[in-house]
Amino acid sequence: MGVFAVIIFVFLGSVKGFSTKSEPCTYSKGNLCKPALANAAFTTLAFLLGATTSVLSGFLGMKIATYANARTTLEARKGVGKAFITAFRSGAVMGFLLAANGLLVLYISIILFKTYYGDDWEGLYESITGYGLGGSSMALFGRVGGGIYTKAADVGADLVGKVERNIPEDDPRNPAVIADNVGDNVGDIAGMGSDLFGSYAEASCAALFVASISSIGINHDYTAMSYPLIISSVGIVVCLITTLLATDLSEIRNVSEIEPSLKRQLVVSTILMTVGIAVVSFFALPSEFTLFNFGTEKAVKNWHLFFCVTIGLWAGLVIGYTTEYYTSNAYSPVQDVADSCRTGAATNVIFGLALGYKSVIVPIFAIATAIYVSFSLAAMYGIAVAALGMLSTIATGLAIDAYGPISDNAGGIAEMAGMSHKIRERTDALDAAGNTTAAIGKGFAIGSAALVSLALFGAFVSRAGINSVDVLTPKVFIGLIVGAMLPYWFSAMTMKSVGSAALKMVEEVRRQFNTIPGLMEGTVKPDYANCVKISTDASLREMIPPGALVMLTPLITGTLFGVETLAGVLAGSLVSGVQVAISASNTGGAWDNAKKYIEAGASEHAKSLGPKGSDAHKAAVIGDTIGDPLKDTSGPSLNILIKLMAVESLVFAPFFAAHGGLLFKFL
Amino acid sequence: MGVFAVIIFVFLGSVKGFSTKSEPCTYSKGNLCKPALANAAFTTLAFLLGATTSVLSGFLGMKIATYANARTTLEARKGVGKAFITAFRSGAVMGFLLAANGLLVLYISIILFKTYYGDDWEGLYESITGYGLGGSSMALFGRVGGGIYTKAADVGADLVGKVERNIPEDDPRNPAVIADNVGDNVGDIAGMGSDLFGSYAEASCAALFVASISSIGINHDYTAMSYPLIISSVGIVVCLITTLLATDLSEIRNVSEIEPSLKRQLVVSTILMTVGIAVVSFFALPSEFTLFNFGTEKAVKNWHLFFCVTIGLWAGLVIGYTTEYYTSNAYSPVQDVADSCRTGAATNVIFGLALGYKSVIVPIFAIATAIYVSFSLAAMYGIAVAALGMLSTIATGLAIDAYGPISDNAGGIAEMAGMSHKIRERTDALDAAGNTTAAIGKGFAIGSAALVSLALFGAFVSRAGINSVDVLTPKVFIGLIVGAMLPYWFSAMTMKSVGSAALKMVEEVRRQFNTIPGLMEGTVKPDYANCVKISTDASLREMIPPGALVMLTPLITGTLFGVETLAGVLAGSLVSGVQVAISASNTGGAWDNAKKYIEAGASEHAKSLGPKGSDAHKAAVIGDTIGDPLKDTSGPSLNILIKLMAVESLVFAPFFAAHGGLLFKFL
Repeated sequence: MGVFAVIIFVFLGSVKGFSTKSEPCTYSKGNLCKPALANAAFTTLAFLLGATTSVLSGFLGMKIATYANARTTLEARKGVGKAFITAFRSGAVMGFLLAANGLLVLYISIILFKTYYGDDWEGLYESITGYGLGGSSMALFGRVGGGIYTKAADVGADLVGKVERNIPEDDPRNPAVIADNVGDNVGDIAGMGSDLFGSYAEASCAALFVASISSIGINHDYTAMSYPLIISSVGIVVCLITTLLATDLSEIRNVSEIEPSLKRQLVVSTILMTVGIAVVSFFALPSEFTLFNFGTEKAVKNWHLFFCVTIGLWAGLVIGYTTEYYTSNAYSPVQDVADSCRTGAATNVIFGLALGYKSVIVPIFAIATAIYVSFSLAAMYGIAVAALGMLSTIATGLAIDAYGPISDNAGGIAEMAGMSHKIRERTDALDAAGNTTAAIGKGFAIGSAALVSLALFGAFVSRAGINSVDVLTPKVFIGLIVGAMLPYWFSAMTMKSVGSAALKMVEEVRRQFNTIPGLMEGTVKPDYANCVKISTDASLREMIPPGALVMLTPLITGTLFGVETLAGVLAGSLVSGVQVAISASNTGGAWDNAKKYIEAGASEHAKSLGPKGSDAHKAAVIGDTIGDPLKDTSGPSLNILIKLMAVESLVFAPFFAAHGGLLFKFL
Repeated sequence: MGVFAVIIFVFLGSVKGFSTKSEPCTYSKGNLCKPALANAAFTTLAFLLGATTSVLSGFLGMKIATYANARTTLEARKGVGKAFITAFRSGAVMGFLLAANGLLVLYISIILFKTYYGDDWEGLYESITGYGLGGSSMALFGRVGGGIYTKAADVGADLVGKVERNIPEDDPRNPAVIADNVGDNVGDIAGMGSDLFGSYAEASCAALFVASISSIGINHDYTAMSYPLIISSVGIVVCLITTLLATDLSEIRNVSEIEPSLKRQLVVSTILMTVGIAVVSFFALPSEFTLFNFGTEKAVKNWHLFFCVTIGLWAGLVIGYTTEYYTSNAYSPVQDVADSCRTGAATNVIFGLALGYKSVIVPIFAIATAIYVSFSLAAMYGIAVAALGMLSTIATGLAIDAYGPISDNAGGIAEMAGMSHKIRERTDALDAAGNTTAAIGKGFAIGSAALVSLALFGAFVSRAGINSVDVLTPKVFIGLIVGAMLPYWFSAMTMKSVGSAALKMVEEVRRQFNTIPGLMEGTVKPDYANCVKISTDASLREMIPPGALVMLTPLITGTLFGVETLAGVLAGSLVSGVQVAISASNTGGAWDNAKKYIEAGASEHAKSLGPKGSDAHKAAVIGDTIGDPLKDTSGPSLNILIKLMAVESLVFAPFFAAHGGLLFKFL
């Protein structure tokens, strides 16, 4: 944070040679704006605020989750309904905390920055973009580091414990069991939380920045300017009402009601939010205003924006449900993958990869439709508010998502504490539902990342003063093809990191089993701390190269090749990264649930493949292990790749526009 | 062919309502050009010629290969050197046949078409583009159908024969052994041949079309116009000289000399060709001329074109060598993958996928550099001739590539004929070298496909009359993101097809082993024909959906959404497809050679992982089986996806420009 804060200040300060003189405004013609140096200072401050809020959110999320998991186990003694409410409420606490916190800090920052900026809204909202960069750069470490942490522990624990030693999942004799349980929180709570917080902060900043250079900003219409923030606020209220539906207005009586109840949350919050958006759009916005649209002006009506936000919201639901279809073992895709285990691990992997590729189709059409409608109606502002629309039910989404690792941990605690089989069964049922909803959450995160990064891309292009990004120019095209390559480079790094860290974990777990007498008999405790240390060290060390790739690419490209090539890189990494991310997440989710399908043996078909330990089950376990880094490390980390490069480009745009493209200047 | 010929004629004929009146030319101002109906008729004719040539090339290639394989086995009795020369010469016969045939038919077509077109070069070279479409559309069936055929047989044969029944590769008791051996020819000879022929035909057509609307075409400078054809002709001569180096000027005395000898072919032909390009560029081209560059004119010097062709040529070499580095077991990447087999199939797959992702980096930078240089120097003409440069050594490339399946088959014949162990060892050595060179060939094919489809994209854009493809417009952006999704959709189809066909093959092979008494003892012959039938039926049936996706996407997009969205789709599928194709091919190649590395046990490290049948070897076999459809079906088929959509768009461009974009017109 410290180093990057200095970089921001120096790069942005140098735009006008650290001059403290006021400058004529770019968009608000005839007025004087604050000096570039002030923008540099405030951007740095906003960056620090965003980063701190993100870290705080992750920290509090993990506090809540680790406070809730043991309580969920205890409640499971009273029945599955009680346990569900405990886990879900805890998830909701985290969801609301994150959404409210993000909004509050952003709002306060705007108010405080305004005391300096006064009427210079261009500079004000330009500086505020630092908030998004701060949120997202910490998310890089949460997602990538968290992903490596959790999967090194998980893969290592499974490969020795389940495969070699044949002991159950979460068995306290497994030295990596604590690391595995901690990992669920690091990856799915801190990682997911910081990822969605980043999306949220970035979407808000992109929307605010684009609005500040529209007629709303130039005419200083403060209510209309705050439209993005009001949408998010209404979202929190809507989610609060929706949550009550699950916890107070209805009751879970048996296991089969859990998944429908969680899915109902999504639908209800989406329907309520649609009404909320309509109300906000008609009251907060003027009936017509003009937006800046890459060199031209575009007239927009308030009901246009209603459609933009709403289509983002509903596209999120479509993505969520498609993800569920491809990753839940209630439907044929996962059942086909399970069936292919009959002929071994190879066909399982082939079918799983094919499933992941196929699962990309519907989400991409949903995203493309959302983009087309919102882009056509309200240019880049439309995209930004569509992203906010998708994220408006973030509190519910996070509640459902955080519910997963809490239940997972609850199961682990039940197993480790030697509680009765019945309790373990209940927590397992909670966990199984959580698996599917976690996949939905990931779908949501990726979909919103795509919209957010497109909005940021638009804001970057506006701020860099480019009026077209023409594929028919060599500068842009090479950016496009190299950008499309970056998700592969990044995934290669993260997958290899998980692989290497897992190998180390395997060696350590084997060593402990071989050298600690009485460990297998359960008379002596393993050295849990050493496994935790391996995961921690690996995640801290291994996240540096992928982190550097993401952070340095925009800086190097912008400085050496200039803004056109950078625009190409952003567009290329966006359109390619979304596909890699969705297919990786869904392939992993499908393998996980194909394995669970065989283990549960709930149908005739599933029974014919099982039981646990059959050849088909062994093949399914291999698929599940391969899927771990795909769905929890490389896949979701790509969200950060595409968003962070875009927001970083946005923040540094004035610098690149002023001093960038050195290589082409010399040639 | 018949159906599509009718579609071409009707669509293109309808551009000017089937009028038989001459039209004013588009680029050659003030002159009259032939009616659109004539262009439709000649395009259809050119399509049929291209398709027939492609089919003929595939057919003759397979004739040569099946004629050569048994002879290679027999020569192996005399020593590895003799066998090498037989296999390599046969490959060379095919390479020269294909390159010469493609050039000859194209040249004759131009001469014949000219008798009708006379001075209307615009119309002439517009019609000639049908030749590229014909070549490429047959390649679709060669690559996709061939890929499904070969891998269904291979995976099916291995899963039962090697894994379940523990009999060696190519054992005559395996019912699928004939299908497997036939498959090598279908996939690697007919598929690869038609793919490279398609690239070659398309690159030539793209170059000719772009040249016809430049000052060369307008001033009717026939020698300069023929520059692309002369480059290819010189390439054939250069390859002829290079081939003599391997067959007559040096001799292979032992196994270790095979691979260097094949690689030397590539380097020598590249160096000689560089000289050839220089000579042609200075003699065939005027010292300066002007090119059409999306609405503007661009002055180009003859030495600019020398650089364009040369950088394409050398980029091909870089791609080839990078591919070798990532797929040969002489280097650390494959050895790391082999090492990861220690902890089982899951880590093997994780490391293999990471390797494939990583192997994309250098080729993409090589392609990007080639694009930047040639694009900057000579716009889209530069890209087209860069592609031709990469393909100028196609005869050598194909010789090396066809050598692989011939040696593979020779080994199969030795095994099936019960020849001595020594002969089998010699053919295995030939085959091992062929594996790496096959990977190089695939790298080449993908690299040239990228350049070719960009050239076609440029020609399409010129012909459709678009002056910019701006990512900052919703029409283009949705095209870009949906286009980037298509390789995933397509891969999902082809992988699933191989998986399903392999499952059927497994069942049939199991059935024969279980129901035919005396089969395992070798006293009774299996029913080979039934396995061949399963592969044939599967490939013919399963190639329809992916084929339809590729053929219909441009038609539907162009007709409903118009040329801008189609341009986005082409750019998106190009930048995304290249990555998927390279990573899939290299991942598969690496797994294959990691397995071979363990089997060969040539080093201390390799010995510690083996021998055959060890747990690490079993894990490696699983990786190899997963890689089969990746490297031989879905990966290489993507070349066709990106090229065919581009050439189809080019051919139908006048129709889309006149009648396309219906959906947006109605909205």
